Amino acid sequence: MRIIGVDPGNAVTGFGVVERSASLQYVAAGTVRGRGIIPRPQRLATIYQKLLELLDRYTPDVMSLERSFVAINVQSAFALGEARAAAMLAAAHRGLDVFEYTPTDVKLSVAGYGRADKRQVKQMVRRTLMLDDGELADDAADALAIALCHLFQVKTLSAVRNQRSARLAGS
Amino acid sequence: MRIIGVDPGNAVTGFGVVERSASLQYVAAGTVRGRGIIPRPQRLATIYQKLLELLDRYTPDVMSLERSFVAINVQSAFALGEARAAAMLAAAHRGLDVFEYTPTDVKLSVAGYGRADKRQVKQMVRRTLMLDDGELADDAADALAIALCHLFQVKTLSAVRNQRSARLAGS
Repeated sequence: MRIIGVDPGNAVTGFGVVERSASLQYVAAGTVRGRGIIPRPQRLATIYQKLLELLDRYTPDVMSLERSFVAINVQSAFALGEARAAAMLAAAHRGLDVFEYTPTDVKLSVAGYGRADKRQVKQMVRRTLMLDDGELADDAADALAIALCHLFQVKTLSAVRNQRSARLAGS
Repeated sequence: MRIIGVDPGNAVTGFGVVERSASLQYVAAGTVRGRGIIPRPQRLATIYQKLLELLDRYTPDVMSLERSFVAINVQSAFALGEARAAAMLAAAHRGLDVFEYTPTDVKLSVAGYGRADKRQVKQMVRRTLMLDDGELADDAADALAIALCHLFQVKTLSAVRNQRSARLAGS
């Protein structure tokens, strides 16, 4: 299974692609910027287009999206909603299912601690994906964490299901 | 000039198309609903698709979009931002310029009073476009008001420009 994690932001949208086959593998990560493009509809269209290109290049099976329920203010929430919509539309237009996780979900599943800071999350992302100390933008690291979060959730769910099946089979 | 006014909402997005040639004419109005479609990416994709179809059917020259700067709460702002993004992307993908107006701009230009209520705005929309008392959804009326707002702004701007030109020519 190949997952693209997306961290939509006002200025920068991070993406990170991971794959789980025999092992857990880093595929790609980076950022998409619409900053400076005016007017806003063109900025959104640029983000949408760049995300479509990433989906076409890396052909992920699902999108894992950070869904924050808090924002600094209403203006920031409007802008975040817009960036998120560009990501959701790109996913819908390529037939990808979208799974949403809160920042706390992501921190909990990747760093084991819901209030982990950015540095801790980044460190765990590097360790989990065996990345060296090369450059990794914060937004790209966050997006990788979001992708990993989905993988871990799926793993936990299927482990629970397997346990249940085993129990049922044994009962 | 033909204008589509769009009033993006959490549940319902209103649209209204008006044309100004020799006179001011009503072309079409209605609502686009994504309500009940789950998951949200599919809901947004449906709104986006329906808006694209409207742009293709009515071939407006520009989109006039309501841009509220307030929301009941952050959640509502996220959802409004998403709906707005679907409209902006549809416009960008058909090469339409988007003009944004606040609810106060719209009320001021259509009803002459920035704190006019929905009923007053609807009444002025009916009067301006010479619509009879047939059914007109609130969201559709709002969208027509948003379209008219752009027309009136453009008219005012060109009147100011013409006065300036006349003054310059006379000086």
